[in-house]
Amino acid sequence: MENPTMKKLDRRCKRTKQAITSAMLALVQEKPCASITVSELAQRADINRKTFYKHYHDTMAVIDEIENELVDKIFSNLNRENVMLDIEDPYPFLRQIGESMRREGERIRILINAGEDTRFSQKLDQALSDMLDTFLKHNTSVDPVVFRFFTTFLGAGLRFIYVQVLMGRTDVPIERYNEMIAELIGYAKRMLHPAVQVPAL
Amino acid sequence: MENPTMKKLDRRCKRTKQAITSAMLALVQEKPCASITVSELAQRADINRKTFYKHYHDTMAVIDEIENELVDKIFSNLNRENVMLDIEDPYPFLRQIGESMRREGERIRILINAGEDTRFSQKLDQALSDMLDTFLKHNTSVDPVVFRFFTTFLGAGLRFIYVQVLMGRTDVPIERYNEMIAELIGYAKRMLHPAVQVPAL
Repeated sequence: MENPTMKKLDRRCKRTKQAITSAMLALVQEKPCASITVSELAQRADINRKTFYKHYHDTMAVIDEIENELVDKIFSNLNRENVMLDIEDPYPFLRQIGESMRREGERIRILINAGEDTRFSQKLDQALSDMLDTFLKHNTSVDPVVFRFFTTFLGAGLRFIYVQVLMGRTDVPIERYNEMIAELIGYAKRMLHPAVQVPAL
Repeated sequence: MENPTMKKLDRRCKRTKQAITSAMLALVQEKPCASITVSELAQRADINRKTFYKHYHDTMAVIDEIENELVDKIFSNLNRENVMLDIEDPYPFLRQIGESMRREGERIRILINAGEDTRFSQKLDQALSDMLDTFLKHNTSVDPVVFRFFTTFLGAGLRFIYVQVLMGRTDVPIERYNEMIAELIGYAKRMLHPAVQVPAL
């Protein structure tokens, strides 16, 4: 199984891709994505065009891969098999998302500044929607309309707050936001338990 | 006070501006905003360029005005002096926003399709932020950090849901969403009343 030659090739391939993505992230800070050429990108990554085409179809495929990796990393903080566990006890996954943001924040900030926020948001929405589909297939005890509303509504709120933090538009630290988000989810999750009666305020 | 000549001029001015905005909304469905020229716009509105410049500095000023008017209309559904009243009893303003969306939905949809959603969102955020500033200046009994978090988090959720409805990405009717949003706010608002104890689920 352990083929040293394959392993070496794999490592080299990974290094080349890393050089390409780093070059892309540098270039999108200088000019619009659409105007970046393969030649420029290859030159910046210190590879030739032929090598570039071994890994990617075009320049947008590089952006696409960076975004997909970020979406995967963000969602890896959630309990994909049973998102209800995260709703019941949101603080652990919120703290992990906070840590992911610290590690990956710079890349996300570059993408947002490059005007990629709409595409990136759509990918996050799609990943959330896929996760909910899987969850709802196996959990027939929740109302799918209420559950889908609840998760997408709160997901949009989460995204808004984290973008504010990432873009430096707020002085409130992410830990304080996570406490408030956890508290809000703690109250709001009652709508997923219609049988439980709570006194009116 | 009632000067019939002025009134007539006012009406004519309004009609000209309406012709220009209608022409703009038609053109952004055909080509990118940035490539629309004043000549094209004037021709489509059936006015001359000189008349255009009497009303607007450039083509983007037309988009800007359309967006500002929409933001004003959306916020006119809220109790601007005391947004807490809307939080305590959200259903009336949600129903009104639903009606505004029905009336103004087509314009908003055109702007979103034209890629104006980021700018439009920023204007909504700014309007919300201004409203909160005014509210917090006169209400020292709420924690400003919690209150600002609560309203912007829920505001982002609301925007997400209404965009889904507007863009036809959901089969759930807006009335059902408004019921769910009102229920969610009803639970979540407890975080604004820290003194009230509620039993844990």
